[in-house]
Amino acid sequence: MISELDLIRRIKAQAIPADRGLVQGIGDDCAVLAAPGAAALTLVTTDTLVEGVHFDLAWHPPELLGRKAVAVNVSDVAAMGGVPRFALLSLAVPDEAGVDLLDPLLRGFMAGLARYRVTLIGGDTVKSDQGLVLSVTVLGEVARGRVVYRSGARPGDLIWVSGTLGQAAAGLELCRQGRTGGYPDLIQAHLDPLPETELGAVLADAGLVSAMIDMSDGLASDLAHICEESGVGAVVEAANLPIADSTREAACSLGLDPLQLAIAGGEDYRLLFTASAADSARLMALAGHAVGHRLFRVGEIVAGQGVVLRADGRESTIGYQGYDHFQKRGTGREA
Amino acid sequence: MISELDLIRRIKAQAIPADRGLVQGIGDDCAVLAAPGAAALTLVTTDTLVEGVHFDLAWHPPELLGRKAVAVNVSDVAAMGGVPRFALLSLAVPDEAGVDLLDPLLRGFMAGLARYRVTLIGGDTVKSDQGLVLSVTVLGEVARGRVVYRSGARPGDLIWVSGTLGQAAAGLELCRQGRTGGYPDLIQAHLDPLPETELGAVLADAGLVSAMIDMSDGLASDLAHICEESGVGAVVEAANLPIADSTREAACSLGLDPLQLAIAGGEDYRLLFTASAADSARLMALAGHAVGHRLFRVGEIVAGQGVVLRADGRESTIGYQGYDHFQKRGTGREA
Repeated sequence: MISELDLIRRIKAQAIPADRGLVQGIGDDCAVLAAPGAAALTLVTTDTLVEGVHFDLAWHPPELLGRKAVAVNVSDVAAMGGVPRFALLSLAVPDEAGVDLLDPLLRGFMAGLARYRVTLIGGDTVKSDQGLVLSVTVLGEVARGRVVYRSGARPGDLIWVSGTLGQAAAGLELCRQGRTGGYPDLIQAHLDPLPETELGAVLADAGLVSAMIDMSDGLASDLAHICEESGVGAVVEAANLPIADSTREAACSLGLDPLQLAIAGGEDYRLLFTASAADSARLMALAGHAVGHRLFRVGEIVAGQGVVLRADGRESTIGYQGYDHFQKRGTGREA
Repeated sequence: MISELDLIRRIKAQAIPADRGLVQGIGDDCAVLAAPGAAALTLVTTDTLVEGVHFDLAWHPPELLGRKAVAVNVSDVAAMGGVPRFALLSLAVPDEAGVDLLDPLLRGFMAGLARYRVTLIGGDTVKSDQGLVLSVTVLGEVARGRVVYRSGARPGDLIWVSGTLGQAAAGLELCRQGRTGGYPDLIQAHLDPLPETELGAVLADAGLVSAMIDMSDGLASDLAHICEESGVGAVVEAANLPIADSTREAACSLGLDPLQLAIAGGEDYRLLFTASAADSARLMALAGHAVGHRLFRVGEIVAGQGVVLRADGRESTIGYQGYDHFQKRGTGREA
């Protein structure tokens, strides 16, 4: 079995050199294109949700699944500081799927598009011999000079997250165990995530952020992406990781480690970003005033490479280890 | 079981109105976008290939499958008169897939991109619990005023195809029956189709073509798309349908009707287009000189609606009937 990272490296290795008009290819939340003469840059991202891997219709209401298929793509655009504009939907549908599944699925998908003011412009509908597969491509736009990449983190920058961590992973585990009666915030975080579109745009506009990514794979893995693309390392303080009380309670009840959920639990779709320490007060004020958002400082960028977790005075290397979507259930990662 | 057409209609019905910058949404080979200030229009298309539905690895060499995933998307760009530029690949990979499958698949995909000078700019790699799924999005460009839509056919226009029909369907049937020893042209038409990129650009440049589509679903279905989008009908002369001798021979040997293969066999990826009768000589000379291509006149656009086949003095309605990819194996259609 090939690992996801190995596969992405094989794809990158075979890719031909950059073309005119290409600002950023493989290696960020979105590709970035500069059409000759165009006022804005074009962002392009794609994400695929596979039945049995990324969702289970036994507990995922089709309407929320449709919204989620939009949300996970819009989140990638937000992580570049952009605004989503257009979407394409490729839908592979099994024989047994009827209108009772497809109508709410499409209703949710369209409601998701409407929420973010995205227009459906095309797609593909095909038969699937097996499960339902939704592959969504979203195009967005961002002003030249405003786009935020994964590659801009510098030693000394502080590391921020835009909300509590681990709730989607806790919600998924509750759903798996059929315990959907309690913890509505955790269940919702898994079924119906809300990307940080407003915050992403505000942060990019302010020009205070050096690198940004949306957390689809979990803090450890997504921070490792920033470190790899920026050529730096990171130290995360376990004590600073924001974990909601409900996540701690659910973790206890599920026999899971809340810290592990916060580090490795994917699909929270919060923004993870880095910024100069001198701008911390401005950043917090900006997020608070503009979108009523609390930011959490979780660590620091350092010279070197790799992601280190500091907990109870001990340091351990985290990063991609164990967060490969090919090995676990979770959401796919950008190639 | 919902039909593919019904599903596309449900998607269209739920789509919100066109957005600024959107020239053409759902309903053509590509969506067409006009970024403010940009010199050229942007084309966007997506096509998904599902294992067990669109391909069978028992006979499809992975390298050729990779090329085909590019070709079917590039063909959509050619059908609008455009040039492909960028691609995103979403790859859902089953556990059991190893490098012996993935390396040639990616090599073929990259070779396909290189052939058409397309740059890979992103994608998504996810686990699949079931089969391999390739979802490809291609962005292209076309000069303003040069793009050719499905909607421009007018009564009196002649209907043309850019090559012989039915060979990919015959090739597929030969593969299914394990008879891959003969008819290399038919086998290749199924495994490794070559889209009409040069011809599409030449025809669009000349400004002689009123409507155009690439034939992924088969003549009947693809002509029905042109008729539906143009608000016209069509009459096809069975005697004028170009069918290669090898297709006739293979059909005879397979117990299939060559006419049916030409009408309903999908995946030939020839161009189907309409043009004023007055321009026929110029069109044929153009195609012959520019790309050494022979064109075949197969019918005429008429007032009304529907596609009629005239054979042996009798007329029968063809069109979408029986060509739904949800009901048969074949290639997906643009939503």
